[in-house]
Amino acid sequence: MTDTWLPTLITATPQEGFELAILLSRRGVKYTQPDVEVLKKLRPDYANSAEALTAASEVVALNFQTVAAANNYWRK
Amino acid sequence: MTDTWLPTLITATPQEGFELAILLSRRGVKYTQPDVEVLKKLRPDYANSAEALTAASEVVALNFQTVAAANNYWRK
Amino acid sequence: MTDTWLPTLITATPQEGFELAILLSRRGVKYTQPDVEVLKKLRPDYANSAEALTAASEVVALNFQTVAAANNYWRK
Amino acid sequence: MTDTWLPTLITATPQEGFELAILLSRRGVKYTQPDVEVLKKLRPDYANSAEALTAASEVVALNFQTVAAANNYWRK
Amino acid sequence: MTDTWLPTLITATPQEGFELAILLSRRGVKYTQPDVEVLKKLRPDYANSAEALTAASEVVALNFQTVAAANNYWRK
Amino acid sequence: MTDTWLPTLITATPQEGFELAILLSRRGVKYTQPDVEVLKKLRPDYANSAEALTAASEVVALNFQTVAAANNYWRK
Repeated sequence: MTDTWLPTLITATPQEGFELAILLSRRGVKYTQPDVEVLKKLRPDYANSAEALTAASEVVALNFQTVAAANNYWRK
Repeated sequence: MTDTWLPTLITATPQEGFELAILLSRRGVKYTQPDVEVLKKLRPDYANSAEALTAASEVVALNFQTVAAANNYWRK
Repeated sequence: MTDTWLPTLITATPQEGFELAILLSRRGVKYTQPDVEVLKKLRPDYANSAEALTAASEVVALNFQTVAAANNYWRK
Repeated sequence: MTDTWLPTLITATPQEGFELAILLSRRGVKYTQPDVEVLKKLRPDYANSAEALTAASEVVALNFQTVAAANNYWRK
Repeated sequence: MTDTWLPTLITATPQEGFELAILLSRRGVKYTQPDVEVLKKLRPDYANSAEALTAASEVVALNFQTVAAANNYWRK
Repeated sequence: MTDTWLPTLITATPQEGFELAILLSRRGVKYTQPDVEVLKKLRPDYANSAEALTAASEVVALNFQTVAAANNYWRK
């Protein structure tokens, strides 16, 4: 991928950090399966499965650990 | 999502931190599947499965790691 | 849940810390499925499955990471 | 459990630390299923399954992270 | 493997760090299954499975935690 | 096991650290199933499964986190 999609891990708020964690999780998928059409086709498979949604939330949690540490937990 | 649901990772007590970890885990699901009706329909799938409940508890544990570190483990 | 079950992450010994990690793991389940009767019914499902017991031990390991860090690893 | 099985996380060498991580992983199982006879019966289920052995190794890896940090990675 | 593929964990940007995390994840697979032909044959199995793609993204998230810490989160 | 297989977590390069992470992952399996013949028999089960290879890579990632931290990420 040649576009710049991750210039920094720093965000203004915890919530923006969480949304960055979601982006990281999706990009982790996209590097393995770059074909957007395939990804669209797979979407119902996990968006309607309790197990798959929990697994997706786990990846977000791991990436949020990274983003939160990068931002020193947004402590004032 | 445009509402503010995560203004800070700081909580007064470990228990409130644990509850924030639960919120983070649910939000991780909700970003992937925003349709509340679908989520309600899926609920019995995991609330009655030992495996799914353990997986849910794992995501909470990961998010609690983040919240606990943010609060410097509520050490006095 | 309105009762206070997690006033502190500090414990006197590593073993008590490990037992707190077990409590955290169970509470992670209980927040998702608060009905104790359902939890009792599910118990044999995982207490007799090698895979489920390993998954349970994984959640304990994650929570023990948090508790151990909170206690600065009980270093003297 | 009333016996003392975890007096400290400090070990003399990384290898002893790894063996402590194994003990922690097994204890995580034993707190959920204390019946040794059941555990013995389940043993072939995972000792002969590639997937279950990998899962067991994952729990050991998590506990080794904790023990290694506690020992400051046995740096001299 | 005798070639040098990992001379450093330091990268210029977070995005390059993420791409290094992907490389680490693939190498983790390759050490277990070095036969490139087998890997090619397995590729459709996970590139078309929502569950497998999420699992792949989880490994990337773990490796990104390491790379991000190594780079002190690219803080300026 | 009475042989010394883990005298230190310190390695000269990140790549040697990654290879140590692989050794740790395999040892985690071997402590649970010490019978080398059984392990050889199981090998095709996971070396030809996309899911099992991803799980193996995940364990390596976790152990690499430990080894990388021990080596202060090989920063100069």
